[in-house]
Amino acid sequence: MLYLVGLGLSDETDITVKGLEVVKKAKRVYLEAYTSILLVDQSVLENYYGRSIIIADREMVEMHSDDILANAQTEDVAFCVVGDPFGATTHTDLVLRARELGIPVSNIPNASIMNGIGACGLQLYNFGQTVSMVFFTDNWRPASFYDRIKENRDIGLHTLVLLDIKVKEPNLESLARGRIVYEPPRYMTVGTCAQQMLEIETERGEKVYDENSLAIGAARVGCRDQVFVAGTLKELCDADETLGKPLHSLVLLGRRTHELENDFCRDFAVDKDKWQSIWAAEYQNKQ
Amino acid sequence: MLYLVGLGLSDETDITVKGLEVVKKAKRVYLEAYTSILLVDQSVLENYYGRSIIIADREMVEMHSDDILANAQTEDVAFCVVGDPFGATTHTDLVLRARELGIPVSNIPNASIMNGIGACGLQLYNFGQTVSMVFFTDNWRPASFYDRIKENRDIGLHTLVLLDIKVKEPNLESLARGRIVYEPPRYMTVGTCAQQMLEIETERGEKVYDENSLAIGAARVGCRDQVFVAGTLKELCDADETLGKPLHSLVLLGRRTHELENDFCRDFAVDKDKWQSIWAAEYQNKQ
Repeated sequence: MLYLVGLGLSDETDITVKGLEVVKKAKRVYLEAYTSILLVDQSVLENYYGRSIIIADREMVEMHSDDILANAQTEDVAFCVVGDPFGATTHTDLVLRARELGIPVSNIPNASIMNGIGACGLQLYNFGQTVSMVFFTDNWRPASFYDRIKENRDIGLHTLVLLDIKVKEPNLESLARGRIVYEPPRYMTVGTCAQQMLEIETERGEKVYDENSLAIGAARVGCRDQVFVAGTLKELCDADETLGKPLHSLVLLGRRTHELENDFCRDFAVDKDKWQSIWAAEYQNKQ
Repeated sequence: MLYLVGLGLSDETDITVKGLEVVKKAKRVYLEAYTSILLVDQSVLENYYGRSIIIADREMVEMHSDDILANAQTEDVAFCVVGDPFGATTHTDLVLRARELGIPVSNIPNASIMNGIGACGLQLYNFGQTVSMVFFTDNWRPASFYDRIKENRDIGLHTLVLLDIKVKEPNLESLARGRIVYEPPRYMTVGTCAQQMLEIETERGEKVYDENSLAIGAARVGCRDQVFVAGTLKELCDADETLGKPLHSLVLLGRRTHELENDFCRDFAVDKDKWQSIWAAEYQNKQ
């Protein structure tokens, strides 16, 4: 059996009891470590599970999935995924390959950022499609998120923006010289995200949002030290210090709001009076 | 401290290790039992936790929240919620009241149907807003879901439809005679949902979907015996026997699809050839 085990959002104790039983008993335990990260080290997980863990990087999952699935017709293999196993599309591939090989698959769900973000006080019913934001470079500034956010905002919905993480990225200079050297991990902050969003609005000019649009920055959702900062996009450009360590994500508000959402979120505001006046003018009683 | 503890989707072992520790130590343990249900009895939970549980019905949570919060400034109270604590809006109220009383709040996330549904193979990125479907009566047929689904489908997105559950509903005849007698619990099936959706399409006629629109019926998501049935809305009207016991939910597909979704979902189809031909004509390579 191939078990897809969700690990949840924060530390070693966010695994479910059902998931922990599977991990303890499985023949091999893999940890998918490139679409998201837990906020504790591999050694902490290994000690807690009482098992050694094989780190499954992108290459292993995409190119050598049959190694992961070896003998899973008769043995139990646990493939652990931060958050929920079906949050990222990569794992769909693994399940399809298991099906081809006649391997039964079982899924052990857990919290994902897609529902965990509800802790910021915005109602999950009012969210549209989720978008991703990658680090811009001088010549690569993908902006499909802008069109998606426009679609959501046109019908009044909030947008969850998931922020880029770069894990085990090869250094390009070294690669050109034939050596693989990995860059240190990089995690996008809310500040960078808000800045990139405003840059694209300036370029495109379709008034999807602006500096005074309300948003919520989130850090370490689901952890004991989770932090939410509510404010305008301009204010969130400078909120990284308050938010602290990774992982960050951002929600841009839609206009179809409920007063309870304001009651809840205003408490997180950088400037409560400013938040309230923009809320009253632009978000309250809108559809 | 008020702890909001997500219990996940299925049975007593879906609680996280962190959540279980809280439940075992808390002074009082409540179980919110009207926005969703676990698929095991209260006694199973009580045995597993080694604790007695106070069932918190709608009246208690909405009218007597201060009883739940009593002494939580200095004692730990665990308020357990099926799925994730922020899936339903009621719990936002409880947190706001706790804040007023100066009670610290901690949230222990878990899987919600809103991310668990990803196990059907449709990508969570391609979902729009979630809608709810209630049991129609002769003179109450709320159809706001239709407008919401239209918004999602206009931009190509899937729609998760959450189905009505009726728990502890008073019998109206008895109530008129001054006695409170509760109806047995009722859980909407995929068949009823698909039927009601088609009725509203017939009434409204805006061609948001039709009998041949593709959808996926889901039963007991996250459980060992979860079932998915893929088919047209017309086929799903008759899929209740295959789906089996509650809880059910339904996903109506949008046209912005990925071929991996088809590879994954077709396996669940009532009629794979029919699914494939509608997919190729209406969903493949659309935006």
